[in-house]
Amino acid sequence: MDTPTPYRYEQLAELIVGMIDNGALAPGVRLPSVRTVSEQHRISISTALQAYRLLEDRGILVARPQSGFYVAAARRGALALPSASRPRAKASTVSISGAVAALLEHASNAGLVPLGCAVPDAELLQSKRLDMALARAARQHGTRYNIYCAPQGEPRLRREIARRAMGIGHALSPDDVLVTSGCTEALTLALSAVAKRGDAIAIESPTYFGFLHTIEMLGLKAFELPTDPTRGVDVDALARLLDMEPVAACLLSSNFNNPLGCAMAETDKRSLLALLARHDVPLIEDDVYGDVYFGRERPKPFIALDGGANTIYCSSFSKSLAPGYRVGWIVAGAYAQRVMERKLAFSLCGAVLPQVALAAFLESGAYDTHLRTIRRLFEENLARMTRTIETSFPAGTKVSRPAGGFALWLELPRRFDSRMLFDEALEHGICFAPGDVFSASRRFRNCLRLSAGHAWNDRIDDGVRRLGQLAQIQLGR
Amino acid sequence: MDTPTPYRYEQLAELIVGMIDNGALAPGVRLPSVRTVSEQHRISISTALQAYRLLEDRGILVARPQSGFYVAAARRGALALPSASRPRAKASTVSISGAVAALLEHASNAGLVPLGCAVPDAELLQSKRLDMALARAARQHGTRYNIYCAPQGEPRLRREIARRAMGIGHALSPDDVLVTSGCTEALTLALSAVAKRGDAIAIESPTYFGFLHTIEMLGLKAFELPTDPTRGVDVDALARLLDMEPVAACLLSSNFNNPLGCAMAETDKRSLLALLARHDVPLIEDDVYGDVYFGRERPKPFIALDGGANTIYCSSFSKSLAPGYRVGWIVAGAYAQRVMERKLAFSLCGAVLPQVALAAFLESGAYDTHLRTIRRLFEENLARMTRTIETSFPAGTKVSRPAGGFALWLELPRRFDSRMLFDEALEHGICFAPGDVFSASRRFRNCLRLSAGHAWNDRIDDGVRRLGQLAQIQLGR
Repeated sequence: MDTPTPYRYEQLAELIVGMIDNGALAPGVRLPSVRTVSEQHRISISTALQAYRLLEDRGILVARPQSGFYVAAARRGALALPSASRPRAKASTVSISGAVAALLEHASNAGLVPLGCAVPDAELLQSKRLDMALARAARQHGTRYNIYCAPQGEPRLRREIARRAMGIGHALSPDDVLVTSGCTEALTLALSAVAKRGDAIAIESPTYFGFLHTIEMLGLKAFELPTDPTRGVDVDALARLLDMEPVAACLLSSNFNNPLGCAMAETDKRSLLALLARHDVPLIEDDVYGDVYFGRERPKPFIALDGGANTIYCSSFSKSLAPGYRVGWIVAGAYAQRVMERKLAFSLCGAVLPQVALAAFLESGAYDTHLRTIRRLFEENLARMTRTIETSFPAGTKVSRPAGGFALWLELPRRFDSRMLFDEALEHGICFAPGDVFSASRRFRNCLRLSAGHAWNDRIDDGVRRLGQLAQIQLGR
Repeated sequence: MDTPTPYRYEQLAELIVGMIDNGALAPGVRLPSVRTVSEQHRISISTALQAYRLLEDRGILVARPQSGFYVAAARRGALALPSASRPRAKASTVSISGAVAALLEHASNAGLVPLGCAVPDAELLQSKRLDMALARAARQHGTRYNIYCAPQGEPRLRREIARRAMGIGHALSPDDVLVTSGCTEALTLALSAVAKRGDAIAIESPTYFGFLHTIEMLGLKAFELPTDPTRGVDVDALARLLDMEPVAACLLSSNFNNPLGCAMAETDKRSLLALLARHDVPLIEDDVYGDVYFGRERPKPFIALDGGANTIYCSSFSKSLAPGYRVGWIVAGAYAQRVMERKLAFSLCGAVLPQVALAAFLESGAYDTHLRTIRRLFEENLARMTRTIETSFPAGTKVSRPAGGFALWLELPRRFDSRMLFDEALEHGICFAPGDVFSASRRFRNCLRLSAGHAWNDRIDDGVRRLGQLAQIQLGR
C-alpha cells in the first residue's frame, strides 16, 4: 500500500535517469523523439511526453523548442556534497532558545520569501478532502465528540495509524499508539520519559533545531555525532562514545535527517540498533518526513527493524498533509506507561474532532494518492532549487542531495558567515535558516538550510538567486 | 457583560431564599399562591411560577399537588460543612500518577454512572453553534488555516479572550495571551517556567489531582496549605510557611476550588497577593471554573487584583463549553517569554481551526447566553445531588456548599474508607473520585468527590443513592 506500482511514465523516467547515471546518456545528448520512445516502449505518446516533462521539471532534461529533449549539461548532482561533520565528543549544554524563537518569528512572516521554515505550504498540500471530513464530523457529530477523549487518543485514528504501520513492515496494535499534539509533543514525552535533568542525549550533527530546543528546555545535554550527508550517523563514532560516556538516549530524525535529507542504509540502521541495545540505550526516532521519499520504496523506520524492542517512534501528519491540525503520534513500547502518564500530566488529551477527521480521511484511502502527488512536487521543488543554486551561489558551494523531505543543506567556504547573510537577507525580504541553529555547539556557521516546501514560483526562484548573489558579495569583500 | 441583569424570576427566587435564610420563612411554611405573588410583585403568573419551580429544582421549595409550594423541611445546607483541613507543614514528594491514571480510566467508562470526572456532559453543554462555526471555518477556509500558527495562538481568539478579561476587571492586550492545549498545558508551562526539579509548590488541601500529577511529573514537591471549605486557603498559615521554607510558587484553583467549590473572599485574595509579593513568590491561578459561578457576580480572579504583577493566569473553555476542543490559555506577565519558549519546545503551537471556531463563537456574543444556561443547570444539579445525599448517606456526612463549578466534596466519619467504597462502587457500576487523590500526602481517605456535570436523570440519582447505601453498609459493619 505504501509502495504502490509506479505509473508507466514514472517507470520510463526512472529508466532514463538510470541510463544517465551509468553514462549511457551523456550530458548534452539528444533523446529519442517522443514518438519513437512511445513505439519502443509500447506506451502512448502522452505518457512518453509526461516522462520527459517530469525529467525536465527535475532539471535532468532540457527541452529545446522545435528540436527535442536533451540531457541537461549541469544536472542535479553537479555540485559537490557537503562534508561529513566531525563534532567534538563532548556533551554540550544547549542554549538555542533565543535563536529558535527569532528564526520562527521571521519564518512565519508572510512578507518574506519563505525559505526559512520546513513547513509545507497549504496551497501545495491541498487539504480540501480532509477539511471537508472535519466539517462533516463537526456538523454531524459535534456533541458526540465534545468530550475529553482517552489520553491515548481517538480509537479510529489509532486504528488507521496502526494499519499504515503494517504497510511499512511493522506490526502494531491500535493500543500501541498514543496520539499527540504534533511530533513535537511526542518528542517531549519521549525525552522526558527516558531522561532526567542533566542527562545527555546523542544526536546527529547537523540536527533539527527543534530537538535542540526541547533538549534545552528539559535541562538535558547533547552529544553531537559525526554525520555524513548521505549515509547519516557514524555508527563507529557512536560506539566509541557509548564506551566512554553515559548516554540516556539517542535521538535521530531517521527518515529523513533534517536538514540533510538523508536516511541511513538499512544495514547501518541495524548496526546502530544492535549497538544501542548492547548498551541498553533507547533510540528515539522522528520519522516525520518518512512518507516524503523519492526512491522506489519508503525507507524502513528503526522501529520496523527492532520490532520496537528498544525504539520510541514519533511522527505526525504535519509534513505531508496537515500542519494546522497538530496531530502526531508516539509508539513508546517499553516506555508506553511512562509516556502515557506524562501525556496525562502535561496536556491531558488531544482535541477530538481533528482526530476524527484524520481517521475518516485515512479510511477513505485518499492519503496514498495525496502522498504520490506531494512526493513528486517536493522532488521537483528540490531539483529546481538546486538548479538555481548552481547558477547563483558562489563557486565551491556544496549542496545536499536529499532522498526525501523538502529542504536543502548548503555548505559554503569556511570564511562564509551565514548569520551575516541572514541579517542581510531579511533586509532584502528573504528568510532562511542559518546553519548554527542546527548544532548544540553552534557549528555550521558557514552552512544554511533552504526549505522548498512552497509551490515553486518566480518569487521563490528570485529569492534563492538573490541569496546566492548576496553570498557572492560577502565572499568577494 | 459578565454580570447581566438577572431575570425577574431570578430576582424573586433570590428574595425568597433571603427570607428563608433570615428566618422570615420557616421550614414547612406554605408560600403565597402564585397568583398572589404575581400581583404583589407586578409580574406575570408564569414568571412567578418559574421562580417557584426554580426553587423547587434547587430543593429549597417543595410542591404539594392541589395545595401549593412549601419551604422544604431539610433544605440545602442542612448537612454540616466539611472540616477545614490541617495538613502538616512539610513538603511532600508526590506519587499519585498510578491512582490518577486508574481513576481517569474508570471515569471515561461510559458504562459506569458518571460521578467520577469533573467534565461537563456534552449533552448538557449543547455546543451546536460552536460546532457549526468549526464546520464553516473548515469548509470555507481550510487551506488558509492549514499552517503552523504563531506559538501564541490565533490572533482572533486572543483578541476575544482579552475582550472577556476586560469584562472581569482586568485590562489585557491580545499580545498578553498565549493559547494552550487546555488548562493542563497552561499549568505545565507555568510550573516549568517558575520552578525546577526539586523545588516546592504551595497548594490547597484538598486540591485538584491533576495539579498533583503535573507537579509529580515535573519532579517538584508540594506544600499543602490548610484550607477552609468556604473561605479557601488560610493566608496566615501560608505566611508562616513562607517565613520558614523556600517556596517556588503558589498554585491555586482560584474560582472555584476543585473539589471544594469555594472561592476566597476578595479581601483574603488581596492579603494573599500582598504576602506572596513580599516574598517574591509567583502565584499560578487556575480559573477554569470561574465562569460557572452561582452568585450575582463573577468572583474576580487574582490577576484582576494585582494587575498581573506577580500572577500567572491559566484557564480554558473545557468546563463551560468545549472539553473536546482542548483550548486553554495562559497570561504569564513577567514570565511570558519563558512560557512562550516552553510552548515552542514542548508542542510548537496549537491546532488552528478549533481556535478560529471558538473566536467566531465568542464574536457572535452567544457565549454569555450559553453561560447563563449552564450556570443554572449546574446549580440545579448540585441542589438535586445534595438532596439525594441528605436522604441516602450515613448520618454525620458533611457536604460542601459550592459557590460555583459542578462538584460536591463529602466528608464521612473518620473510620470511613473511600478507597474501599470506590472498589465496591465499581462493582455496582458507579464511578466517583476517592478523597486521597486530592492530597499530596494522601489525606482525605474518609472523603470523596461527586461530579454533577451530567444532565440529571434517574440513573444518576439512583447512583448517588446506592453510593450512600454502600457507605451506610460499610460504616454499619
